[in-house]
Amino acid sequence: MQAPRYTATRVIRLAAQQRSRVQVRRFAKFATPIKSRPLRLSGPSIAFVLAGASVLAAGVSFCSSLRADDGSLSHRDRDLRDPTLPRFRLSDIRKHHGKSGSPWVTRGDKVYNITDWVAAHPGGEVILEAAGGSIDPYWDIFTIHKTAHIYEILEQYRIGFVHSDDLVDGKPVVQEIEDPFQHDPLRSSRLRTITAKPCNAETSTDDLSNNSITPNELFYVRNHMWVPKIEEQKFTLEVELLDGTTTQYTMQDLRDKFKPIKVSATLQCAGNRRNDMTMHAQQTNGLQWKVGAISTAVWEGVRLSDVLIDAGFPVQQAMQGHTEANHIQFSGSEAYGASIPIESALNPYGDVMLAHTMNGEPLPRDHGFPLRAIVPGHVAARSVKWLKRITVSDEESHAQWQRRDYKSFGPNETHPDWDKASSIQEMPITSAITNAKVEDQKMLLEGYAYSGGGRKIVRVDVSTDNGDTWDQAALLDDEMLSLGRKSWTWTRWRYKSTFNVARLDKQDTACSMVVVKATDEAYNSQPESHKSIYNARGNLANAWHRLKVCSDCNG
Amino acid sequence: MQAPRYTATRVIRLAAQQRSRVQVRRFAKFATPIKSRPLRLSGPSIAFVLAGASVLAAGVSFCSSLRADDGSLSHRDRDLRDPTLPRFRLSDIRKHHGKSGSPWVTRGDKVYNITDWVAAHPGGEVILEAAGGSIDPYWDIFTIHKTAHIYEILEQYRIGFVHSDDLVDGKPVVQEIEDPFQHDPLRSSRLRTITAKPCNAETSTDDLSNNSITPNELFYVRNHMWVPKIEEQKFTLEVELLDGTTTQYTMQDLRDKFKPIKVSATLQCAGNRRNDMTMHAQQTNGLQWKVGAISTAVWEGVRLSDVLIDAGFPVQQAMQGHTEANHIQFSGSEAYGASIPIESALNPYGDVMLAHTMNGEPLPRDHGFPLRAIVPGHVAARSVKWLKRITVSDEESHAQWQRRDYKSFGPNETHPDWDKASSIQEMPITSAITNAKVEDQKMLLEGYAYSGGGRKIVRVDVSTDNGDTWDQAALLDDEMLSLGRKSWTWTRWRYKSTFNVARLDKQDTACSMVVVKATDEAYNSQPESHKSIYNARGNLANAWHRLKVCSDCNG
Repeated sequence: MQAPRYTATRVIRLAAQQRSRVQVRRFAKFATPIKSRPLRLSGPSIAFVLAGASVLAAGVSFCSSLRADDGSLSHRDRDLRDPTLPRFRLSDIRKHHGKSGSPWVTRGDKVYNITDWVAAHPGGEVILEAAGGSIDPYWDIFTIHKTAHIYEILEQYRIGFVHSDDLVDGKPVVQEIEDPFQHDPLRSSRLRTITAKPCNAETSTDDLSNNSITPNELFYVRNHMWVPKIEEQKFTLEVELLDGTTTQYTMQDLRDKFKPIKVSATLQCAGNRRNDMTMHAQQTNGLQWKVGAISTAVWEGVRLSDVLIDAGFPVQQAMQGHTEANHIQFSGSEAYGASIPIESALNPYGDVMLAHTMNGEPLPRDHGFPLRAIVPGHVAARSVKWLKRITVSDEESHAQWQRRDYKSFGPNETHPDWDKASSIQEMPITSAITNAKVEDQKMLLEGYAYSGGGRKIVRVDVSTDNGDTWDQAALLDDEMLSLGRKSWTWTRWRYKSTFNVARLDKQDTACSMVVVKATDEAYNSQPESHKSIYNARGNLANAWHRLKVCSDCNG
Repeated sequence: MQAPRYTATRVIRLAAQQRSRVQVRRFAKFATPIKSRPLRLSGPSIAFVLAGASVLAAGVSFCSSLRADDGSLSHRDRDLRDPTLPRFRLSDIRKHHGKSGSPWVTRGDKVYNITDWVAAHPGGEVILEAAGGSIDPYWDIFTIHKTAHIYEILEQYRIGFVHSDDLVDGKPVVQEIEDPFQHDPLRSSRLRTITAKPCNAETSTDDLSNNSITPNELFYVRNHMWVPKIEEQKFTLEVELLDGTTTQYTMQDLRDKFKPIKVSATLQCAGNRRNDMTMHAQQTNGLQWKVGAISTAVWEGVRLSDVLIDAGFPVQQAMQGHTEANHIQFSGSEAYGASIPIESALNPYGDVMLAHTMNGEPLPRDHGFPLRAIVPGHVAARSVKWLKRITVSDEESHAQWQRRDYKSFGPNETHPDWDKASSIQEMPITSAITNAKVEDQKMLLEGYAYSGGGRKIVRVDVSTDNGDTWDQAALLDDEMLSLGRKSWTWTRWRYKSTFNVARLDKQDTACSMVVVKATDEAYNSQPESHKSIYNARGNLANAWHRLKVCSDCNG
């Protein structure tokens, strides 16, 4: 892959490492001459990215009214800004670059010491690319950051203002960077777009209702960054073992050397139905997916364990427990990373694969062209797109998306201990109504149910009176959904009431609160309310799905 | 094994097969002379047994006031019984024996055509042993049947009365049978006995709180029948493959030929916490277990897959899907049977074993001496005791305990389609409070959490205000609980409130509704209420565990 390159003006970074605020203030007295040079940044190196729009705020509740203060200064004499906070020259700010050990950034005319934030940043250390200068041009691209919630986090780290000598029209001059999303593919207008850059767009309820296998162009898109431009001929996958041995495979190698397999699997984002949790519990931080961050495809490719064997990893021994490997790490071409437990990777019933084909076509660019890990039954965040490296390791991936973002907590845990929490891997059971209408006075409902770990859906219960009484939906068969060793896909269901929907009289609207809950073969069922599983991050919002259906609105 | 033998007087069975009620009534006109001979019945053949006290009543709700009518007749002239129902001579009733195709039984002076009931009988066809005669002597032993609920089921099949010519003091003379439970072992008085014959007794809350590994004598007992008397020297295990090939193993063979393994695993009855469902939802049919139908031991034995390989089953091929075998069936020495899916049996991470040792001692008789299947993470009903036969098969065991009893249904499914429902295998997540008290005004709680399929418990949430707010319990470590490839055991937890328990004043009692709910590594959590998972059979009662704690009662 050719990493996209962007030109940006950037100051030379000085080597001084200043950690204490006292020293920092002393620096502010100096006026260092500005030197600049053009800087070439590769794609991953400017990957200033968040896993979703959201960051778990340590005890800080969402404040939608909070706005950034962009008040400008036209003249140094009129520096009316808070006189209790120090002023810093840009030349000194530049010393607090990404390798300084005490990184600072500016936003507008304000200065922030983000040293303590870096470890908690969901996008990882890529934030350091902005250190020593302004964060504004990055946020103009990664607009996902432009929320009151993130402004509030940053505000906690404010240490002062840019010196008025360095301001033009009240703002420091800011370098420009090219838009890394300019080469993103076109997407279907039928997707419901939540953020454009990076693209996060869900499958519509109509398309969920109408397809057991989701057509490629209607498959939900969940990107953490831009879509890398990769030429298949130049692409190689690298596999690294515990001892550092590496083996490289071209796409042709993968096709030629290994037995092809075909598996139907549903992928679902950990944040699917997050908006439901927000609506029924309280505010959550993250992309506000409705019920469409889930889709199903038939994937073709090769078995991960076959590739590992070829690369020299003793799979049979490891499967018996004779290995020091505990995790298989996946790295994407754009900077994303994640890992799965060794058991998930090697289990002969697990169907973990490296896919090059999706519903009979080469992987679309949005879905990982030319190669994507597919980890059936697990959160889609482990099915790493644009897969360029597989690392056999004794530990989990160090990526933020493994160690921070894709975890969940108790309703009270607003200051969670991230290291203590378990990474989301296999998904819990969920279900949703994707179509509800009244036809000939009968209630018609359609939807999906899905459980992780290959656990088959054995029953879907439907209520038309908010859970007081229940009936069972018909589970729809589709043999295309049964490719693979376990039940890796959603089960679509349909329900038609045997009774007539009540109508009070011709003037009144008769409304019903319809509810769906599913049960899987381990007889796990869904929690009744989002309140009890509330987590500030809004992950795994799998409570009963409730929907108000009005006969006069729909009938 | 020597099957216990019981002598009983029994009439000769006539060969006539009468299926229609018309024919049956015609028979009632005859007076056949009674012939009798002593009959030797082997253990399994009189195994007139229920899986628990309960039977799923087809739409019939429990009526605790219903009592059997034992009104007697002292003289044929005074036959004041319902004149619209026919009378039958005992000689005709005897024709409706177990092999007649139209089995009848009597209870007291009433006659029942149980032909349509046999298929639904949770104890299976063993009910046919009583056919042609009185069911009373069996129920005097299997007292588990003496409930209004079962009387009510039987009453649906009543076709008439025993002819008054065959009554002495208003009742037919009944044969006697010996007590098959007379050789059952002694049990600890610390167990909470629910039924004595068969023995069903749960571990006390004190013993649950005090032990991470349950001592053998305190391990809950769930027997469907009596405990067979087996001499280890004479014992053989038989393994049968798909093609009918069988291999036999003595206990010495098992010890000598296979690598020993040691696994810590929790066993839990599908009915654990059933009483909680009864209390919080509605009446359930089955043994009213509280929180103690669960215990944990360290099991030693050999890997099932090693034995299957030795017996000639191509395990490696089968693990890749190249087999027509779908299930591994287990048969116990007393008549019990069950099966597990082939995947559970072969999965290298599954730890399915044949155990001869429990917590360092030979298996106690109550727990399967000399050999028991241990299927970690699955309902204990699949860990078949007194294991005498393993059958590789394309289908599930035909035993009632596989096809009928251990299944679950929707709250509304009072006439369930048993064949459509999925056999309980892996267990859903549950938790319970086993100790709750107020000490120095602090709330102290202890308990367990457990999930099936080897899914580790990652969090236990506790509420002292009925679920309004939550806190996390400390999860207790014990390295003895981690023997094996996955998390097969419960996680014990402890909680101490940081706040003082409210006391209104010295006269008042301050009570709190404490609640526990757990989350496993697939982030499955427990349903909030038993109402939503209610099933008439009362299986898998895994809702949040609620307990009222009063400071003045306990403090």
